[in-house]
Amino acid sequence: MKKLYLVGTGPGHSDLVTPRALAAIEASSDLVAYGLYLDLLGAVCDGKTRHQLPLGEEIERARLALDLAASGKVTALVSSGDIGIYAMATLVFELLDLQQQGLEDHPEWLQVELEVVPGISAMQAAAGRCGAILGHDFCTISLSNLLTPWETIVKRLHACGAGDFAVSFYNPRSQKRDWQIDSARDILLEYRPPETPVILGRQLTRDDESIRVITLAELDAADVDMFTLVAVGNSESRQFTTPQQRWVYTPRGYSKKL
Amino acid sequence: MKKLYLVGTGPGHSDLVTPRALAAIEASSDLVAYGLYLDLLGAVCDGKTRHQLPLGEEIERARLALDLAASGKVTALVSSGDIGIYAMATLVFELLDLQQQGLEDHPEWLQVELEVVPGISAMQAAAGRCGAILGHDFCTISLSNLLTPWETIVKRLHACGAGDFAVSFYNPRSQKRDWQIDSARDILLEYRPPETPVILGRQLTRDDESIRVITLAELDAADVDMFTLVAVGNSESRQFTTPQQRWVYTPRGYSKKL
Repeated sequence: MKKLYLVGTGPGHSDLVTPRALAAIEASSDLVAYGLYLDLLGAVCDGKTRHQLPLGEEIERARLALDLAASGKVTALVSSGDIGIYAMATLVFELLDLQQQGLEDHPEWLQVELEVVPGISAMQAAAGRCGAILGHDFCTISLSNLLTPWETIVKRLHACGAGDFAVSFYNPRSQKRDWQIDSARDILLEYRPPETPVILGRQLTRDDESIRVITLAELDAADVDMFTLVAVGNSESRQFTTPQQRWVYTPRGYSKKL
Repeated sequence: MKKLYLVGTGPGHSDLVTPRALAAIEASSDLVAYGLYLDLLGAVCDGKTRHQLPLGEEIERARLALDLAASGKVTALVSSGDIGIYAMATLVFELLDLQQQGLEDHPEWLQVELEVVPGISAMQAAAGRCGAILGHDFCTISLSNLLTPWETIVKRLHACGAGDFAVSFYNPRSQKRDWQIDSARDILLEYRPPETPVILGRQLTRDDESIRVITLAELDAADVDMFTLVAVGNSESRQFTTPQQRWVYTPRGYSKKL
């Protein structure tokens, strides 16, 4: 059997890696990943052949994973978070689709059995760390305009505002992209109050985790980097403080019954 | 220490329960949940005091969990999926917020330390089972108008269409609510093609799981029940078939590079 696992390993902490993800890695002889993700996993990767391609070489990683699996090596393509959410899984399926259309020359890829193992995504780790900002309808928007035209992102920001969705921003900033998060803030401020709660979750569940709860008006690119998940509440989201910490939640509409 | 865990146990299969969720349940003497969720967990619940309240008694479950924890019993409030996504966590935080405002009379609740343990949500299980429909920007909408006015849901459906988000519908149908999913389909058909891929995922990861990939035009309330997750692609989502099965994915925009 030729097998390729597409594995999401969660936000970082080992106790948020599912048993299914661990089993998939254990069953594999070859691991394809950005190196940091494998370091976080620790001993389960010992003895495996590691194929560590740098950030930016996503297409090469997807091709390599399909090639290795097609050659008979049980392979796991690994990413942090959920590999199906802004991650590598979709690229593998896009390559297979191209092959099916005759636009690639790798018929052997179609003999590979695929299994996707979902994982806890950063938005879930951020929400849980501070309460329940995802308690009602929400959306996710990647602010990276490397692959998506900025006009498309702007259209989605306005739709998020008009629909009053809570929103989690992925890829809010990088070294070369420093203004997108401020633009996103300004668009959302056309639709919801300046005191709307915002979570800045950096390096979630990892040793150097930091969490801040601020307001939409306070959101500033200077406080955000490529390791930050930015979550913005909808117009009904609230924040409050207990002796333990500051919390954010989005109500579901029970208030009439409470 | 007074402690309340808010625990999501994933879609159903034990190998998608995180070690952190298991540890929280193990550390608790009292479990509050809809009974089925505990049955799915199996032996880890043995010897715990179970407080099994029926569906519909969500507020009572949240109050009971806070009361038990405040009385000194280490308690886990358990739900399937992610307890932060359309589940019980937000209700616990809403009660705490009301207490902080002096609208409840339970100051003892504020002495409880809370820990939210996220879980794999149904949308992630559905997406992974069939490929990568959540590969780019997406939203979630609950079609239950028991707590949310239908006008709000309609507004979000139009925003979803205008923003061209892939969408996962939670609570698409119940015994008393049988027309909402057809209305949602009709609204989305104003924005995206009839051949847009749709996943119907029923009882995901459980023994009686069933999965179908259809088109938006084929979506019909007759094929949906309260155990079904309905996921609709965006205008760029594609479906294709390999010897293994039918797949759905939403591309991220690598096509120019491929």
